Amino acid sequence: MEFLTVPPEAAALEPRLPPSQPPTSLSRPFVTLTFATSLDSSLSLAPGVRTRLSGPGSKAMTHHLRSRHAAILIGVSTLLADSPALNCRTPGGASPRPIIIDPHLRWTPSAADKVFEVARLGHGLAPFVLTGVEAPSLPAASVALLEQHGGKYIPIAATSSGPDARMRFDWSVVFDALLKEGLSSVMVEGGGQIINSLLDPKCHALVDSVIVTIAPTWLGKGGVVVSPDGIENSEGVPIPAARLSDVSWHPFGEDVVLCGKLHT
Amino acid sequence: MEFLTVPPEAAALEPRLPPSQPPTSLSRPFVTLTFATSLDSSLSLAPGVRTRLSGPGSKAMTHHLRSRHAAILIGVSTLLADSPALNCRTPGGASPRPIIIDPHLRWTPSAADKVFEVARLGHGLAPFVLTGVEAPSLPAASVALLEQHGGKYIPIAATSSGPDARMRFDWSVVFDALLKEGLSSVMVEGGGQIINSLLDPKCHALVDSVIVTIAPTWLGKGGVVVSPDGIENSEGVPIPAARLSDVSWHPFGEDVVLCGKLHT
Repeated sequence: MEFLTVPPEAAALEPRLPPSQPPTSLSRPFVTLTFATSLDSSLSLAPGVRTRLSGPGSKAMTHHLRSRHAAILIGVSTLLADSPALNCRTPGGASPRPIIIDPHLRWTPSAADKVFEVARLGHGLAPFVLTGVEAPSLPAASVALLEQHGGKYIPIAATSSGPDARMRFDWSVVFDALLKEGLSSVMVEGGGQIINSLLDPKCHALVDSVIVTIAPTWLGKGGVVVSPDGIENSEGVPIPAARLSDVSWHPFGEDVVLCGKLHT
Repeated sequence: MEFLTVPPEAAALEPRLPPSQPPTSLSRPFVTLTFATSLDSSLSLAPGVRTRLSGPGSKAMTHHLRSRHAAILIGVSTLLADSPALNCRTPGGASPRPIIIDPHLRWTPSAADKVFEVARLGHGLAPFVLTGVEAPSLPAASVALLEQHGGKYIPIAATSSGPDARMRFDWSVVFDALLKEGLSSVMVEGGGQIINSLLDPKCHALVDSVIVTIAPTWLGKGGVVVSPDGIENSEGVPIPAARLSDVSWHPFGEDVVLCGKLHT
């Protein structure tokens, strides 16, 4: 495994991270929303296209963040697009528990998946998969593969709504499930749908810290864009969907890292 | 007129600005592309909705930039949406010449327009309007109103293309026209269509300096977005449309100001 060197500037992010000793009584995990975008707020050039955005400094900073969270959460689309390792590659950094949001089990785990490869090498943890599929209906081979690596499925309550009848999770149900597993902090990394749903005003109170890396590039139209649904005030006039408070900006090489809070 | 106080951080932008003494021989004006966006790359909440994005520090910085350019250029949609003053409101700062890109003369000048009001008060200059309408067809009342204030129409060559048969200008023709007027530098401020067209790779060689203010807010979907058209390499794979080099990031209050170059 190739290690990443955390730049000294990462120390400035310390106040943005979960406490090293989690409080004895928690109502939900400490939630950090973190991702990297282009100047035109794209996570990738097109759906399913893995796109390198952050430079070496901010990438190492992200891995430092991973060492400071008990869990790292992504949606299944990101897993399928990127096959990420979801581990921590800083020297001595503990890897977080990968959490996959996969209501309909779109992911069929395979021993060759990167996330299992690093688990077998002791360089990361196997994922917990949050799904709307009930326990008796889970595919036996996938259950076995996950459990061999130390992972598992966690069936949780889903709501089915909208014309597509797709199951969705309430964030409070997701975070409750993590707390039940003893996970006191989680960084939410992507993809677009996951991030946009947490940027919705209804969810701001659930997010403790926001850390966004911005790379000095425009990917162009057609990318996977971070932008929450537009909102209006009671007179029907459009108003900003979200604003950060307690803001700080930290240059890391050619990128900048923005820290803030969604609620005051 | 209320003056804006330029924060001391603005001094760091000096290397990004046109030379105080323009070279004796110029092939085109020094072009600075500058605008303010939200984190989701929106200029405004919706088309035609004026949206305050930058805080007092970065706003004063923008007015300092205006004092260092001979001209300030916007598209007619921005003029119609915002009725901006397009002057410089820093103490002792010279106001630039407003340039309006208005191929089809969508703007009917009125004495009550802000840009004329400040011109009458000696707090700014009247605009030069670049149009595809030929001189004999220009409306006499508008010609007179512009000229009374020290402005004028400048008919230039337009290309008509696309299904809408709308006239468009080549940027090289626009910049040639400015140079002919003795304008050695121009800051291009908006709106979305103007900015996106300059971010197209075909135009990168025409831009000397890029200065973007980013405010820590997500306006949400439905805004006027800065994002150039997506491009692909020769194998049909999407690639980034534009990347800045010679990058620096400058926090101004809660905003950050990004400086860079589109060509190396």
